[in-house]
Amino acid sequence: MAMLVFPDLLKDDSFTEDVKQRARRILHSCGGSSIGSYSNSLGIQCIREDVASYIERRDGIPSDSSDIFLTGGATEAIKYVLHLISTGENGTKRAGIMVPIPQYPLYSATNAELNAYQIDYYLEESNNWALSTQELERALQASKGQCVPRALVVINPGNPTAQVLSRSCMEGIIRFACEHRLVLLADEVYQFNVYQPHVHPWTSFKRVLHEMGQPYADQLELASFMSCSKGFMGECGFRGGYCELVNFDPAVKAQLYKALSARLCPPVIGQAMVSALVNPPTENEPSYALFLRERDQILGDLRMKADLVTRTLNSLPRITCNPIQGAMYAFPRIELPTRAIQAAKEVGQQPDFFYCLQFLEEKGVCVVPGSGFGQAEGTFHFRTTILPTVKQIQYVMEALSDFHMKFLAQYADD
Amino acid sequence: MAMLVFPDLLKDDSFTEDVKQRARRILHSCGGSSIGSYSNSLGIQCIREDVASYIERRDGIPSDSSDIFLTGGATEAIKYVLHLISTGENGTKRAGIMVPIPQYPLYSATNAELNAYQIDYYLEESNNWALSTQELERALQASKGQCVPRALVVINPGNPTAQVLSRSCMEGIIRFACEHRLVLLADEVYQFNVYQPHVHPWTSFKRVLHEMGQPYADQLELASFMSCSKGFMGECGFRGGYCELVNFDPAVKAQLYKALSARLCPPVIGQAMVSALVNPPTENEPSYALFLRERDQILGDLRMKADLVTRTLNSLPRITCNPIQGAMYAFPRIELPTRAIQAAKEVGQQPDFFYCLQFLEEKGVCVVPGSGFGQAEGTFHFRTTILPTVKQIQYVMEALSDFHMKFLAQYADD
Repeated sequence: MAMLVFPDLLKDDSFTEDVKQRARRILHSCGGSSIGSYSNSLGIQCIREDVASYIERRDGIPSDSSDIFLTGGATEAIKYVLHLISTGENGTKRAGIMVPIPQYPLYSATNAELNAYQIDYYLEESNNWALSTQELERALQASKGQCVPRALVVINPGNPTAQVLSRSCMEGIIRFACEHRLVLLADEVYQFNVYQPHVHPWTSFKRVLHEMGQPYADQLELASFMSCSKGFMGECGFRGGYCELVNFDPAVKAQLYKALSARLCPPVIGQAMVSALVNPPTENEPSYALFLRERDQILGDLRMKADLVTRTLNSLPRITCNPIQGAMYAFPRIELPTRAIQAAKEVGQQPDFFYCLQFLEEKGVCVVPGSGFGQAEGTFHFRTTILPTVKQIQYVMEALSDFHMKFLAQYADD
Repeated sequence: MAMLVFPDLLKDDSFTEDVKQRARRILHSCGGSSIGSYSNSLGIQCIREDVASYIERRDGIPSDSSDIFLTGGATEAIKYVLHLISTGENGTKRAGIMVPIPQYPLYSATNAELNAYQIDYYLEESNNWALSTQELERALQASKGQCVPRALVVINPGNPTAQVLSRSCMEGIIRFACEHRLVLLADEVYQFNVYQPHVHPWTSFKRVLHEMGQPYADQLELASFMSCSKGFMGECGFRGGYCELVNFDPAVKAQLYKALSARLCPPVIGQAMVSALVNPPTENEPSYALFLRERDQILGDLRMKADLVTRTLNSLPRITCNPIQGAMYAFPRIELPTRAIQAAKEVGQQPDFFYCLQFLEEKGVCVVPGSGFGQAEGTFHFRTTILPTVKQIQYVMEALSDFHMKFLAQYADD
């Protein structure tokens, strides 16, 4: 069965030879040369090798395809690894998972689903959403007796916070995780979305770990996640992603791989998309120029929009926004007038929800209240994305400015 | 982002207008008219409606798209529903899930993953793998005190057992599940793979439930699963599937739908494949003739192979095989000679594993030992598939006959 292939496309002149060659290589690795067949449950072998090669080029250190498994988006990988970590001999206590606040809520949702104990640690807004070891220590201490701490989640570049972590910050995280024997879950899905690479370069946790040497390099268990849904590709509907495991015990890895086999296989076209992500055209190939042009156009636009959004937000009274160094979001803080907070309470709404709803009703623009991501007590935020076109973003910023000024006037404190 | 579409294919003359029309309709329902975008987390609305229409045509009773969610293959749906059912207030006891033996091991694997208590019930081999209410009662009684029974899994047509359940058997199951307040999980992924439809017709549990009337029709909570990976399509690599919920409490459904939203969305091309599955060409459309020809060819071949395999197996001494009424497998019983069982023990292997391994080594044909699916104590089986071409199946049957006779001669009891 599984007869669907597009043989005619491989003869089509609108595709260059390097593209066809890549398609043929993937098809050759598929059962019956068809993307309609089940693949190996960890993913097509040559694509796992593509991922390992990419990681080697990126970090300059070895990567082994047997440490890599492909998934239906990074989400699936994250859920499997959290499940693995939350299960097992914790006595009567739940597994503790340290999660940043604010946080992309996949982690809190999955912890709730797995009945894991979530240990919230707060990112330092006044320090460009950095992650301080003191705060990690405080959060861990506060969880004492409630759980068996097992893992630390870090999202870098941040979602919704858009920071790119500094190397010293990453080193502190690695030392902390090693000392407390925590698995480090590095959500690195925005690794291509870095807008000031010369000022705030992104580095993988694997590389920092490696360069810190012993005892860290051989001790820390690290799982790093990547996706086709972000970057300059944004092909989210295909559900392609991968995870690289570093320093995992072979017996643990075997259990994870056994669990993964029950899902049969990740979507095969999503896997092909992962291959395209990590194995783009190279300098002497016919489609290289087009690839560069498209990639640079998209990333250039994102950079411009990141800048425009940061500047506009910071130009408004009672709004402050850390620079969008990476990812695809802004997470500005709004200092809401007391009377607005009062008005929100009167209608039974969270103040940030109240603000976002009014903006939606007035201008037809939807931004997400900070309470969906978590925020320090008494602070209010919203998340907006920089994904729409430059023109749309310009409109949104004008609409926001207009709405915001009127809102402030309406609820001005006496 | 999410720019990948195949606009040129919609102009291509090699596709008929009805096919293009279907593609346009789906694209129109996608964000940015692209299959590369995330969809609604429960699936694209028009495809959920396609599924509901198909179920209405199939059963002659209403189906509501809000009761349907799309998934990455039926596997994902089954795992989510089992997770939902295994969670919650069971006091200190685990949720009990009744599972057929022999059984496609997704269920045992998922129960292990979720720490659910598996209640094995045995299918009656001597009665064409029927499911007796007495056996269900026995199994449930045996689990008393170990768990809180919550659900009953039935696979129809059977995997690996290939039976199509009779209506009276299904009615007994529905009465039993209602009486014990169990959710019925109906794995109906082989509903198109029915080889003697006039003698042993397949009927959906939903339809039987409806026709039984009160109190069953309004009481039994039923989840039915379907997939693009089986039938005459067999497009397993795309990961398309759906689940229909019947009589689920709206609050429970809301929790399930909330959990599903954390996975973002099912693979969008897999969803399109579901649409193709449930919304095939109709009589006056240009691609109808081709569709009929391909479908009938594939199903005709499967029917022929089902017959060939059943006949060959039953022609061999010490092998008996119930007729392959549906699905894609044969699960013959082998009466192994005492000396073969002895020889297996000497090398530390299960006797059925020993038989299968010898067959693999002698003839290069891989069949799966019955112990992987569960079997009554002291009986031995293997599972083979009828998926290869007619020619290949003929070869396999010849190879098996030859191997089997030599094996019997080699281990003949004195």
